[in-house]
Amino acid sequence: MIDGEMQAFALTLDKFLEHAAKWRPDAQVVTARDGGGTERIGYADLMVRSRRVSAMLAGLGVGVGDRVATLAWNSQAHLEAWYAIMGMGAVCHTLNPRLTAEHLASMIVQSQARILIASADLAPLAGQILDRVPGIEHLLLIDAVGEEAPQGAPSAAPIEPLLAEATGEVVWGGFDETAPCGLCFTSGTTGAPKGVTYTHRSSFLHTLRALQVDGMAISGSDSILAVVPMFHANAWGLPFAAPAVGAKLVLPGRHADGASLARLIAAEAVTVGVGVPTVWLGLVEHLEATGGELPSLQRIIVGGAPMAPALMERIEQRLGVRVQTSWGMTELSPTGTVAPLSAPSQAALSGRPAIGVDLLLTDADGTPLSQQRDAEGHLRVRGAAVVQRYFGHDAPATDANGWFPTGDLARIDAAGNLMITGRAKDLIKSGGEWINPAEIEAVVGALPEVSLAAVIGRSDAKWGERPILLVETQGEVSDEALLASLRGRVASWWIPDAIYRLQRMPLASTGKIDKIRLRSEYGGG
Amino acid sequence: MIDGEMQAFALTLDKFLEHAAKWRPDAQVVTARDGGGTERIGYADLMVRSRRVSAMLAGLGVGVGDRVATLAWNSQAHLEAWYAIMGMGAVCHTLNPRLTAEHLASMIVQSQARILIASADLAPLAGQILDRVPGIEHLLLIDAVGEEAPQGAPSAAPIEPLLAEATGEVVWGGFDETAPCGLCFTSGTTGAPKGVTYTHRSSFLHTLRALQVDGMAISGSDSILAVVPMFHANAWGLPFAAPAVGAKLVLPGRHADGASLARLIAAEAVTVGVGVPTVWLGLVEHLEATGGELPSLQRIIVGGAPMAPALMERIEQRLGVRVQTSWGMTELSPTGTVAPLSAPSQAALSGRPAIGVDLLLTDADGTPLSQQRDAEGHLRVRGAAVVQRYFGHDAPATDANGWFPTGDLARIDAAGNLMITGRAKDLIKSGGEWINPAEIEAVVGALPEVSLAAVIGRSDAKWGERPILLVETQGEVSDEALLASLRGRVASWWIPDAIYRLQRMPLASTGKIDKIRLRSEYGGG
Repeated sequence: MIDGEMQAFALTLDKFLEHAAKWRPDAQVVTARDGGGTERIGYADLMVRSRRVSAMLAGLGVGVGDRVATLAWNSQAHLEAWYAIMGMGAVCHTLNPRLTAEHLASMIVQSQARILIASADLAPLAGQILDRVPGIEHLLLIDAVGEEAPQGAPSAAPIEPLLAEATGEVVWGGFDETAPCGLCFTSGTTGAPKGVTYTHRSSFLHTLRALQVDGMAISGSDSILAVVPMFHANAWGLPFAAPAVGAKLVLPGRHADGASLARLIAAEAVTVGVGVPTVWLGLVEHLEATGGELPSLQRIIVGGAPMAPALMERIEQRLGVRVQTSWGMTELSPTGTVAPLSAPSQAALSGRPAIGVDLLLTDADGTPLSQQRDAEGHLRVRGAAVVQRYFGHDAPATDANGWFPTGDLARIDAAGNLMITGRAKDLIKSGGEWINPAEIEAVVGALPEVSLAAVIGRSDAKWGERPILLVETQGEVSDEALLASLRGRVASWWIPDAIYRLQRMPLASTGKIDKIRLRSEYGGG
Repeated sequence: MIDGEMQAFALTLDKFLEHAAKWRPDAQVVTARDGGGTERIGYADLMVRSRRVSAMLAGLGVGVGDRVATLAWNSQAHLEAWYAIMGMGAVCHTLNPRLTAEHLASMIVQSQARILIASADLAPLAGQILDRVPGIEHLLLIDAVGEEAPQGAPSAAPIEPLLAEATGEVVWGGFDETAPCGLCFTSGTTGAPKGVTYTHRSSFLHTLRALQVDGMAISGSDSILAVVPMFHANAWGLPFAAPAVGAKLVLPGRHADGASLARLIAAEAVTVGVGVPTVWLGLVEHLEATGGELPSLQRIIVGGAPMAPALMERIEQRLGVRVQTSWGMTELSPTGTVAPLSAPSQAALSGRPAIGVDLLLTDADGTPLSQQRDAEGHLRVRGAAVVQRYFGHDAPATDANGWFPTGDLARIDAAGNLMITGRAKDLIKSGGEWINPAEIEAVVGALPEVSLAAVIGRSDAKWGERPILLVETQGEVSDEALLASLRGRVASWWIPDAIYRLQRMPLASTGKIDKIRLRSEYGGG
């Protein structure tokens, strides 16, 4: 072996906050408070507080590898808990407050977390979880002072007094970079929720992708509004990416309505907003109703759900921003691809994979398609931040060649750009042939009067299933006009048998259209 | 330990070319040929050729960990050799053709390379090296066909016929990511050249920094002119960064004069030029003499030497580009910091360190300064791509706390931006007090008539040393005007005792001003 060495540098997440504390000590993390106020702290002070949370957790017996659960909105205190837990080598198990206590309890039973950190206004839900999980020894409340502890909790306390009493110093880092840092269960829209265990290394490398000019292009000069929740899929990695470059990070707390976001964007000179499409629809509707401009806003990064071209155009025009589409999954940490700023704005395209991510199109059985460009197939993915094996599973989550089957249907164009064309499990089987709801939704969603469109299969005695269309509109549009938009664009037998108009499209816990609920309400035939 | 796993993904450099070959197969590597022509190849074909070079080298007995030396310009064939050597786990020992055969021979004796790959026009120098190093078994000539093999070579051959005969397949990757990939000796401007051993991991992480929006911001939509030589300090990592995003890479061969560069930039729609300041001075002078515009060019990244504000302004105005300053060293792989595009253009500032790089100011003895901002001191650095121990050395290159002493003097401003203020070994001791030549050079260099300025110490019977000024000018400027520019800007006893006007400032092998030569010619007193 050749002589000489380069320096050791473990890819652990504590380094992001330490870097920010040293090089951007005064760059701020801003949290929206109930009632329109804000709380703000610089990275240097945030690290001091976060280390105190580590010391407090150590005092409660938390050690390397232990799981600590959080049930909280995007807030400074939640961020402090993240770094406290991960920095000391424990594992942050994030819980989605939009799920039921029963579901959440079953997840905590699996992770064996003995401590639950919850936003104070979620104390009732936390209490219901405690009732079901005797293994939880401590419930610590953040995000408010003086809230009542839920009845029957073994040990429920606001976190602040405990921090004031915490003594001692906990060393951050020092463990192997492949140590786990986080645990998140999939939203379970296509089956039972499965746990994904993130490691320091996988999330570190995922973060470096978010900083790339051809990716999310997160810069230290940005003010980033993270509407994507910290309680699911790492808030797309923004709580790592922002301190990694010392960017200002703006956290909306529990308020993701248009008025709250507009106020935050204006007050904090937000340059980049990140969240699912429906969030930005709310912002646009608010501005359309009340007037007003948001001149600081330059870009919006969307993902988590298909972006309707009409909505994208509406957002770009009303807000005067560039919308960057992206594709990801809980299993991908979560970002797979991002449409780069240098590409023309196009709703359907989610960009080429960056180094560290690789894509493969297969048939339904997992055999690679002979043609991988200008072709459509079942999407598989491989990479540094992709799941290998789910929490608690013996079998790998990948195929024999290491590819993870995403369950998405996709097209890859000649230039290598990814276009998600649907979910394999969403497909409707009608008369023995497949109908892809996503293609129908894309056409109807392109109509300016349509805010959100969903197509599901309805049981049909003759055909097995037939497609029906559910729409939320923002203007007058006749059923005939809706169907006319489809003629010549999709096969005639793909045209929905019925149209339902919804006041509000039901959204699942992650902000995506809740097709499970739509199917249970409208799919019976 | 918590259950569940993320996928394994070794940070090895072969992945960059494989990624480009798959996702940007047609993006080009363009090489300037003698006489104004160009050679071009897509990444997919380049990988095929590079794998054939691996097979050929394997046939000559090269295995994992073996060193293969290259003595070549920036060219497609050199790039093929790099990936061939590194991809198979061998170590690419780059040699600087501007050094003497004697120096180069002593480096090869140390690395024990048995194969030397050289640009055909460097065959005479290669022959002189062979005469001195009997251990070299094969001299392979690239970059031209039908060149004569140098006399007395044990086995000298153009590479192309060997590639045509090469059979078999060599697997790339599969070794540990901390395996060495490259070896480069420091330029030795401040002592005997020392070897720096790069690893796959260190260069991979260094590359990810070059892709960051706050760093070099290398994008797949860029056409990058790499004037920085592949024969020293990895051409600042561009041969890794370009394929990592599938950017077009333009290689100037041996011609870095203004006319050649202007032709290449125009013909290949270059968007980013990267090289030492003097290269761009040549380009500006050419355009000033001949007229013409280079509308595709957006940015120039400079480093390796202080950037004179006047030259920077001249480049920005004449070329209509943004100049980004940077700081680095062979020991840093080589980039330390880069001024981000989002910061105001300022010659002296080299930006804040990115995650993975950390800086410390100390006194001359290595004790950290109590104040690290708005302060000046001796610069130390730590990070994922910084040398830990030189090739062949027993002692670490770092201090007890893991900091590498750069030998640079630096100021870090309140916002954390690095400003290199001089070289510790350049300091002039006059009457027992220190004079910093870099500060004097910066003032004189700001005059529009001054192209290049150097201050060195001249032996002085009374004071020990006294500063003298050497200038290359581009317009009329009196000695009195040169000195007047300094009055009130530096201490009166810092004002040089003499001024020498040079037709051409002597440049060292890396394009920096050759102060060793200036001292030997003018420093005797």
